[in-house]
Amino acid sequence: MSLPKFSILQDWVAAQVSPYRLKHIQGVARTSVRLAQRFGLSAQKALLAAWLHDCAKELPKREMEGWIQKAGFRLDGAEKKMPGLWHPHAGAAIALKKWGIRDKSVLEAIRCHTLGSAQMDPLAQLVFVADFIEPSRRFEGVEKVRALARKSLKEAVLAKASMTVQFLFEKRMKIHPRLLETWNQFLIGK
Amino acid sequence: MSLPKFSILQDWVAAQVSPYRLKHIQGVARTSVRLAQRFGLSAQKALLAAWLHDCAKELPKREMEGWIQKAGFRLDGAEKKMPGLWHPHAGAAIALKKWGIRDKSVLEAIRCHTLGSAQMDPLAQLVFVADFIEPSRRFEGVEKVRALARKSLKEAVLAKASMTVQFLFEKRMKIHPRLLETWNQFLIGK
Repeated sequence: MSLPKFSILQDWVAAQVSPYRLKHIQGVARTSVRLAQRFGLSAQKALLAAWLHDCAKELPKREMEGWIQKAGFRLDGAEKKMPGLWHPHAGAAIALKKWGIRDKSVLEAIRCHTLGSAQMDPLAQLVFVADFIEPSRRFEGVEKVRALARKSLKEAVLAKASMTVQFLFEKRMKIHPRLLETWNQFLIGK
Repeated sequence: MSLPKFSILQDWVAAQVSPYRLKHIQGVARTSVRLAQRFGLSAQKALLAAWLHDCAKELPKREMEGWIQKAGFRLDGAEKKMPGLWHPHAGAAIALKKWGIRDKSVLEAIRCHTLGSAQMDPLAQLVFVADFIEPSRRFEGVEKVRALARKSLKEAVLAKASMTVQFLFEKRMKIHPRLLETWNQFLIGK
């Protein structure tokens, strides 16, 4: 995507979300570029995925459903019951259908940024981690994960997966099992 | 099962396991009877499930597989890769095929004692909890779970599911997603 078009995309994203969310998105973008440089990945793809990862987060449920259907994406049984998990799929659908982004790696990075997946490639790992450690994140342990991400994406992925599960236990919220699939896969390899 | 036959079963179990494991089984049996009385469940069924829940734990993998096949039980894909999760199924298979126990509730209580399941009935919940809080268990937080179990099986089930996941995170071990299915189900109902 050329630079003029990218600024149009940024303006569009900014119009979709609250100032709070926009600050988070800008933080994820900065962190993603830094991680891309550190781990030798495409900064352009990282930036694109970062800017679009939460673009659907504040859309009404119906609109999210519409984008997901339009792109032919499928939610699994557990996701269907948890609307809080629709925005990564809707975001990837918007990337594909509204912005014409066909790069599978970018689409997967958007689609997997909340739960991860056992199949995440390095770009998806990077966005999954950047979403957790960007500068406006404030939670106990975030500095530890930032330090891990300076050395190993895999270790930072494990930290986000396990800390997210523990946070949801504390909040007494339902937890999608894919977070454990991410944990199990990155424990043994990648 | 009549009393003379039950003492034969106890002697057989005692011969299958180490003194350490036998002490645990005896603890689960005592705790299960106490919980059965507290929550108005069958003490006889609780005792039977408790005595058999770990009877296969120290068997060689091949023997566990043999019992599971004989009973026609099936392991899911994740369980197949985790031999540490075979003994509940092998124990239920032994209950069925060696001891002629056909009570589905007892068999399910044995089969679900490690990971739980979304479908656990009160007897299965009781054994799942007793396995975690019996007197020889020593871990941080066990007293809190014992206190929960005095009031609510459901709350104690949630505590075991979440604390087990957190323990496995700390040990950097693979985690079967059924623990989260148990968490998710008991969070909303039962």
